[in-house]
Amino acid sequence: MLLSDYPNPVLEKAKAIKLLICDVDGVLSDGKVYYSNQGEEIKNFNIKDGLGIKQLLNHGIQVAIITGRQSKIVERRANELGISFIYQGKSDKQSAYQEIINRLNIEQQQVAHVGDDLPDLPLMLRSGLGFCVADGHYFVKEKADWTTKAKGGQGAVREISDLLLQVQGKLESIHQQYINQPQ
Amino acid sequence: MLLSDYPNPVLEKAKAIKLLICDVDGVLSDGKVYYSNQGEEIKNFNIKDGLGIKQLLNHGIQVAIITGRQSKIVERRANELGISFIYQGKSDKQSAYQEIINRLNIEQQQVAHVGDDLPDLPLMLRSGLGFCVADGHYFVKEKADWTTKAKGGQGAVREISDLLLQVQGKLESIHQQYINQPQ
Amino acid sequence: MLLSDYPNPVLEKAKAIKLLICDVDGVLSDGKVYYSNQGEEIKNFNIKDGLGIKQLLNHGIQVAIITGRQSKIVERRANELGISFIYQGKSDKQSAYQEIINRLNIEQQQVAHVGDDLPDLPLMLRSGLGFCVADGHYFVKEKADWTTKAKGGQGAVREISDLLLQVQGKLESIHQQYINQPQ
Amino acid sequence: MLLSDYPNPVLEKAKAIKLLICDVDGVLSDGKVYYSNQGEEIKNFNIKDGLGIKQLLNHGIQVAIITGRQSKIVERRANELGISFIYQGKSDKQSAYQEIINRLNIEQQQVAHVGDDLPDLPLMLRSGLGFCVADGHYFVKEKADWTTKAKGGQGAVREISDLLLQVQGKLESIHQQYINQPQ
Repeated sequence: MLLSDYPNPVLEKAKAIKLLICDVDGVLSDGKVYYSNQGEEIKNFNIKDGLGIKQLLNHGIQVAIITGRQSKIVERRANELGISFIYQGKSDKQSAYQEIINRLNIEQQQVAHVGDDLPDLPLMLRSGLGFCVADGHYFVKEKADWTTKAKGGQGAVREISDLLLQVQGKLESIHQQYINQPQ
Repeated sequence: MLLSDYPNPVLEKAKAIKLLICDVDGVLSDGKVYYSNQGEEIKNFNIKDGLGIKQLLNHGIQVAIITGRQSKIVERRANELGISFIYQGKSDKQSAYQEIINRLNIEQQQVAHVGDDLPDLPLMLRSGLGFCVADGHYFVKEKADWTTKAKGGQGAVREISDLLLQVQGKLESIHQQYINQPQ
Repeated sequence: MLLSDYPNPVLEKAKAIKLLICDVDGVLSDGKVYYSNQGEEIKNFNIKDGLGIKQLLNHGIQVAIITGRQSKIVERRANELGISFIYQGKSDKQSAYQEIINRLNIEQQQVAHVGDDLPDLPLMLRSGLGFCVADGHYFVKEKADWTTKAKGGQGAVREISDLLLQVQGKLESIHQQYINQPQ
Repeated sequence: MLLSDYPNPVLEKAKAIKLLICDVDGVLSDGKVYYSNQGEEIKNFNIKDGLGIKQLLNHGIQVAIITGRQSKIVERRANELGISFIYQGKSDKQSAYQEIINRLNIEQQQVAHVGDDLPDLPLMLRSGLGFCVADGHYFVKEKADWTTKAKGGQGAVREISDLLLQVQGKLESIHQQYINQPQ
């Protein structure tokens, strides 16, 4: 995606973002939960999304996970990516949201949220910039500022991290660093 | 999907529905069974479908699972979603069907059924409203009242729950509740 | 698929078939092998393919599995479907092929084979009717009599079982049996 | 893909290749990592890619894996395919690269590299021929000599092995060997 592919209001809002809140199932994962007959639960995550999250964290944009479900899997993935703000099994997501912005001392207008279904709406609507993934629920798409081209678990979060970093003038140098390594 | 995208007979039949019966493999799952060399069996389910089923149960439409195969996995998923009518490993699905409608004291016209393959036809055909998923077998599509846009395990059941709840005037308030939470 | 969608030579050859030989990876499965860090190997199979195989076996068309790889998983799936001709880990697939047609006392013209890659060619080419799946290797497609519309592990084998049963006049009654069950 | 589908510079560069270096996640796999709640990690690989790698190794083109992540899974898959050059968990991929070409006594112009994301760029750019998979990051596509038609884990590596072997005049005989086996 080029910046010119985004409408101006999305670009304007993206400039202010200092925190990206991600839902898990259907956003960081592809929305499938795998169950085995021996009681195991399995989720999948996208490697390219992971790099996007690390880039955000390394360039001054915080990342948080707030999800209604509870799973050790999410904790593992969050640790791996260096995400320290992780709230699981929260029926009251709003207090988690408030706690994070208090700790970071930021405003709601500095928060972006990406979700795929109705339970994401309360946090999305109080955030400055709301994203829905390509295969999200239609009502969430209607309420989001922007719907990603990629589906959940298939690069949607990377698309967002690229947008945020690019509009804040940080993406170019990230890319250059990979092509300017000494040979 | 907007209600205007559905033909009138489907909308009329949907108004009467008080029970949705779901097949599992290929409907609640994507039709793949995963086997490991250590004997494990794995299925996957869609999170968005899960929310749709909970919405049905919370708004007076019962949900049942009747499947010819037997698996602990299905039991787990049913429990998680609060589905109490679960019949597995039934070669005689018809008696399970009869038992449910007797217990709920409803008529066949008040039953919707969603399937993907031939073994679903007997229950589908005696139900008031029959659905086939987008990647279902062609003969089942021919016999169904409606084929969903989504494939099995990829939101087909949510599409149906949205339709049933919307035509019965309950979806709007469900959606509003998510956007009217106190901030 | 309607019979009219197939070219006449394919239909003519299909009438004679008494045995379908299936490759596993990429045909009965989607061609992905899953490995865990604890040494497990996982494959997936398609439920609709499974029903097609049972229909073949129940209506006088034998089914065999000949595969170059070796896995308990395949044995399990074969047992589940009632496939008794199963040859795994065969570098010499030709002798397995010969053994089956000897035991069944059939001719090569009565054998159909479905594969997805080069190692399937020797058996495919000596069989009366050769299929390649939609996502098979291009050179196999060139040599096959027909390429299925469905990908491996996504209904390709069911497409073939439907064709064989329909051209041999058995599919209609199979379908009718599901819609004529007593209510 | 026919050779005529490739631009001449790609064909010219492909003639010189004696080593193919593959990234793992998103190239040999589909870019998803699966985590279970019991701590297992799962990746998937494509069988058709595997055959392509074996063909390369059997026909004088070496294959190496250099990846930033570390996993027993990759070791297993590499062993299975006969890949002896395997470097995992390398933050300094460049020294691994240098070590391989020293041991093989080849030039950078004789190395092809296939990747999907930014960390692949340093090795890709010093290689004679750089590939990006169809679902790779846009900046990598911009820098690659060629983007495969297939996605990562869905045949991208086979597409490359076919190209290399064909342009070096070895593919035809590989294919013929499968159709000329004694019957």
